[in-house]
Amino acid sequence: MTTQELIDQIHLKKSFLCIGLDTDLEKIPGHLLQEEDSIFAFNKAIIDATHHLCVAYKPNIAFYEAYGIRGWVALQKTITYLNEEYPQIFTIADAKRGDIGNTSSRYAKAFFEDLNFDSITIAPYMGKDSVEPFLAFTEKHTILLALTSNQGAFDFQTQKIGAEELYKKVIRTAVTYENSENLMYVVGATKASFLEDIRQIVPNSFLLVPGVGAQGGSLEEVCKYGLNENVGLLVNSSRGIIYASVKEDFAKAAAEKAKEMQTKMQRELEKFG
Amino acid sequence: MTTQELIDQIHLKKSFLCIGLDTDLEKIPGHLLQEEDSIFAFNKAIIDATHHLCVAYKPNIAFYEAYGIRGWVALQKTITYLNEEYPQIFTIADAKRGDIGNTSSRYAKAFFEDLNFDSITIAPYMGKDSVEPFLAFTEKHTILLALTSNQGAFDFQTQKIGAEELYKKVIRTAVTYENSENLMYVVGATKASFLEDIRQIVPNSFLLVPGVGAQGGSLEEVCKYGLNENVGLLVNSSRGIIYASVKEDFAKAAAEKAKEMQTKMQRELEKFG
Repeated sequence: MTTQELIDQIHLKKSFLCIGLDTDLEKIPGHLLQEEDSIFAFNKAIIDATHHLCVAYKPNIAFYEAYGIRGWVALQKTITYLNEEYPQIFTIADAKRGDIGNTSSRYAKAFFEDLNFDSITIAPYMGKDSVEPFLAFTEKHTILLALTSNQGAFDFQTQKIGAEELYKKVIRTAVTYENSENLMYVVGATKASFLEDIRQIVPNSFLLVPGVGAQGGSLEEVCKYGLNENVGLLVNSSRGIIYASVKEDFAKAAAEKAKEMQTKMQRELEKFG
Repeated sequence: MTTQELIDQIHLKKSFLCIGLDTDLEKIPGHLLQEEDSIFAFNKAIIDATHHLCVAYKPNIAFYEAYGIRGWVALQKTITYLNEEYPQIFTIADAKRGDIGNTSSRYAKAFFEDLNFDSITIAPYMGKDSVEPFLAFTEKHTILLALTSNQGAFDFQTQKIGAEELYKKVIRTAVTYENSENLMYVVGATKASFLEDIRQIVPNSFLLVPGVGAQGGSLEEVCKYGLNENVGLLVNSSRGIIYASVKEDFAKAAAEKAKEMQTKMQRELEKFG
């Protein structure tokens, strides 16, 4: 999926919502545990109920890996279902991978070719040759961690390297990588004012913003500093939507929460003009 | 496996060799491709031929993920085989994971509980709450990336934060984390002299050292700066051992290469005294 197609979908749906599929067998409605593949049954119901309100889904790979082969099968069924039934949806493997060149190439192959995700999240610590193997897939998108939404972000990301913080150095360095036009960046909503600085470095890039909702970030603040001419934002919500109800009405409840978010996003898009 | 048990194994075998299982269907001997599970068949033959010469095996998770469910099955069979047949071997999941707290907990569960690895490699970028969920498994070991062996290490890791480089800041910060006594650190052999500085911060910790062999690092240099009273080193070799031959004699050839490494290590241990 090209960036332009993503932007078109955002305008069509008046939504830049990404729904995080952090599917946890201890949190999904009990009646689904009788299904042969409870994880996929949950995901399918959530997707069918919310696909018209969002432009992206983001399975958090850890939740699938935690269930071993069973989880991997569910992940594969989920991405296949998305690609077949809803090809206009942007898919994000939230994997936070990154390793030396020949190893990163393996991860890129796994997520881009075999699973056929549109994008993957990547950790920057190992630098250029750990990121470029993902960027080599020029039809795909590589989403680099810049400033995350957790407390630990202050351990290193906001520490100053010379005149500026590490997360800015990461972005400024990454834009020099080959095929960097295919980069997006993770920027946590819990520090929305940082977005202003980031927009000075990458005015045109898409930012994937976690931390609105369960983690306390404000959508209005994020939009104030983050929206650009091409929208340039994907705002993620996981638990706040998918676990809105743990009863049989869970999919309907998720759709209601997604609708709330979409309505707010529509308002922000109209405000922006 | 406790650190003391690992040290005992090193003294018993006169080896601190870790063999990386970067198993690649395009590189393994052709005759194995007829096996039902070629990846496991290769790993099993390598392990059976080399287990007396090394103290650790390190499957590189990317290589397994790249084959989807088939790879995941092979990984599970490999770790089960190691745990059942060679329980005195230290096992490392080279996964370089790291995410917000509830997600890191999932990864920890996947690799420590379900797969039952002794240790896992972790990326530090997201800070304390991304690392501590691994450290919470106090019977296990968490191996934090400090200074990696690739060119991209110079992008951020060796950049100065205040008076010292990021990789030193990472180590100095990590030792303040809860259960930090279970930390080991990845330090690439391609910059062996850096080990001297690192030993000033963590004189007693184990360091996992990639980059000897295929990536050009010198074992002698690594030992000069890295060995401590408890040995404190695991030196990894992957391609240089497992792909020593691509013919039917591959396991024997791997054992010969491992024996060469073990002999050099024995000499270094004797030199250290």
